[in-house]
Amino acid sequence: MELLSAALDRIGPPDAEAVAAADALQLRLTKPPGALGALEPLASKLAGLAGVCPPPLPEPAAVAIFAGDHGVHAQGVTPWPQEVTGQMVGNFLAGGAVVNAFARQAGVSVTVIDVGVATGDSDYKVRTGTRDFAVEPALTRAEVVAALEVGIAVARNLVEDGAKALLTGDMGIANTTPAAALIAAFTGVPAEEVTGRGTGIDDRTLAHKTWVIEGALAMHRPDSADGIDVLAKVGGLEHAAIAGFILGGAAARVPVILDGVIAASAALAAVAIAPDSIHAMVAGHRSAEPGATIALKHLGLSPLVDLGLRLGEGTGAVLAHGLVASAVRVLHEVATFDSAGVSEK
Amino acid sequence: MELLSAALDRIGPPDAEAVAAADALQLRLTKPPGALGALEPLASKLAGLAGVCPPPLPEPAAVAIFAGDHGVHAQGVTPWPQEVTGQMVGNFLAGGAVVNAFARQAGVSVTVIDVGVATGDSDYKVRTGTRDFAVEPALTRAEVVAALEVGIAVARNLVEDGAKALLTGDMGIANTTPAAALIAAFTGVPAEEVTGRGTGIDDRTLAHKTWVIEGALAMHRPDSADGIDVLAKVGGLEHAAIAGFILGGAAARVPVILDGVIAASAALAAVAIAPDSIHAMVAGHRSAEPGATIALKHLGLSPLVDLGLRLGEGTGAVLAHGLVASAVRVLHEVATFDSAGVSEK
Repeated sequence: MELLSAALDRIGPPDAEAVAAADALQLRLTKPPGALGALEPLASKLAGLAGVCPPPLPEPAAVAIFAGDHGVHAQGVTPWPQEVTGQMVGNFLAGGAVVNAFARQAGVSVTVIDVGVATGDSDYKVRTGTRDFAVEPALTRAEVVAALEVGIAVARNLVEDGAKALLTGDMGIANTTPAAALIAAFTGVPAEEVTGRGTGIDDRTLAHKTWVIEGALAMHRPDSADGIDVLAKVGGLEHAAIAGFILGGAAARVPVILDGVIAASAALAAVAIAPDSIHAMVAGHRSAEPGATIALKHLGLSPLVDLGLRLGEGTGAVLAHGLVASAVRVLHEVATFDSAGVSEK
Repeated sequence: MELLSAALDRIGPPDAEAVAAADALQLRLTKPPGALGALEPLASKLAGLAGVCPPPLPEPAAVAIFAGDHGVHAQGVTPWPQEVTGQMVGNFLAGGAVVNAFARQAGVSVTVIDVGVATGDSDYKVRTGTRDFAVEPALTRAEVVAALEVGIAVARNLVEDGAKALLTGDMGIANTTPAAALIAAFTGVPAEEVTGRGTGIDDRTLAHKTWVIEGALAMHRPDSADGIDVLAKVGGLEHAAIAGFILGGAAARVPVILDGVIAASAALAAVAIAPDSIHAMVAGHRSAEPGATIALKHLGLSPLVDLGLRLGEGTGAVLAHGLVASAVRVLHEVATFDSAGVSEK
């Protein structure tokens, strides 16, 4: 619990003075007020997080891909075999996945963390996959805390190595099932509305997946005010680790760019555990999963990229990184009306 | 007319074989089919443009900012003084504008072309601003052709210098007024629906701006099938030059990433002049201007970035460049299920 407690102690509200300074600076720059749309409040938010205006450029940036397997896979919620989780970990390490290509484009480093894959060795592995939450709680509270602390440790290590932005990534066959369960539990929105097709399941599998989630929520009755309880009952190891990664970023006052539905469900857990962690979060993109939109709305976050991606891996977060960096760079580099000798209206 | 004729001769349909090869490759890569949303058809479109799969990475990329002034400024359609156009050209050249900051972030080169600013010297200047289209046609047909050829020449020069993607940019105080007039003329949508607040005008100025546009369209009756006629009657020099820039990109089979409402209006002109130029176009972003959405819909293009920007300069196109490059990079670098030893569903 020590890492978690230490992180929670360091998470606090934004610096109102830095936000005000950023808002004021935006008005003096050579552009009409508000002309950068959503990028202006984003830059001000990051000033508040960093406690300084302009906030640091979010570079170098690091995407951390947390991988885990899921007992609920046994319920037939996806046509993909469980072995793909471990195979894709190999693909990430070999640089052959989409997230690797996107990361090379964006100049973002890739770290892979096996927090719960069914096969293979890893210093960070908490358990070789969750239990089947259709039958019993997915994790114990101690396992959730261990996974949270994996995420916190990874965030801390990346920040110590120089990362100025943390990007969430995930891999886990069947992991949109616990994500939907988490979102339903935290938001109170019915499973039917938050459950989606993940990698592209048919109508019959979707109905079954929804029924599995509804049954688990009815059986376990997770306490939405207790983030650890919800993660233990219907979560996943990568979901818990990502929640910890967010908390670790918030503790270091470094922005965390959220990927898709897995990250959004983890973000709900992070906010349940430490409400002020919201100030570190940037919604990278809107996943095609319906639960992602519901979770982001609940969090009050607007996504930067909205292109119908539904891959996970951190792909949406990596795509968004250049937009976040551009928003911040404006506060560093753009001339003021005075300095550029440009007339105002 | 020689440059224009030569460009038009080279613009043709996409290569269907390359598109089919890209579509087929997408299905073999280690990701669920369709999981990259809008980025998959985008990559296939660029394969069709290039006539090869995978298409070239769109790097290095160059944004060209075409600047011009507008006689219709005299009608009071904006509170910004006309001198700001020339002052912002200086700001671009000094590297102090938002587009410069975004371009540094994205690794995109910036070229500024004074095709029609009221003050200053330029080899490319066709005229020191347009005539007031509330009173008379903005340009002669010969001036439109000259501006189109400026755009074609700039595109050709940038491609000869190695650019693998062309990004449109614009600067011109009052230039959302001709853009709205062009969009109304080409799409047939009433001026009231396509006219927006530009840099942020009040209700009264918006009503006046709309009335000016309605009056000009009623007086000049531009022929929507004749792109040069529409540009001459209610266009701008930067609008015409950007239309030429698009045609130049299409002739070189290099993708052209469109910025906001000025680019969208120029794209309508380009398509009226050479329908196959559409195959070179990528909609970089959705400007907050209502006419931009109407024009993109008419063109059948979906924007990549949708963040409420309304600045112009090429800012939205530059933001989108990393997304376009990421989409193409997938076809170059991502492993197949076979090569990575990943199981399929």
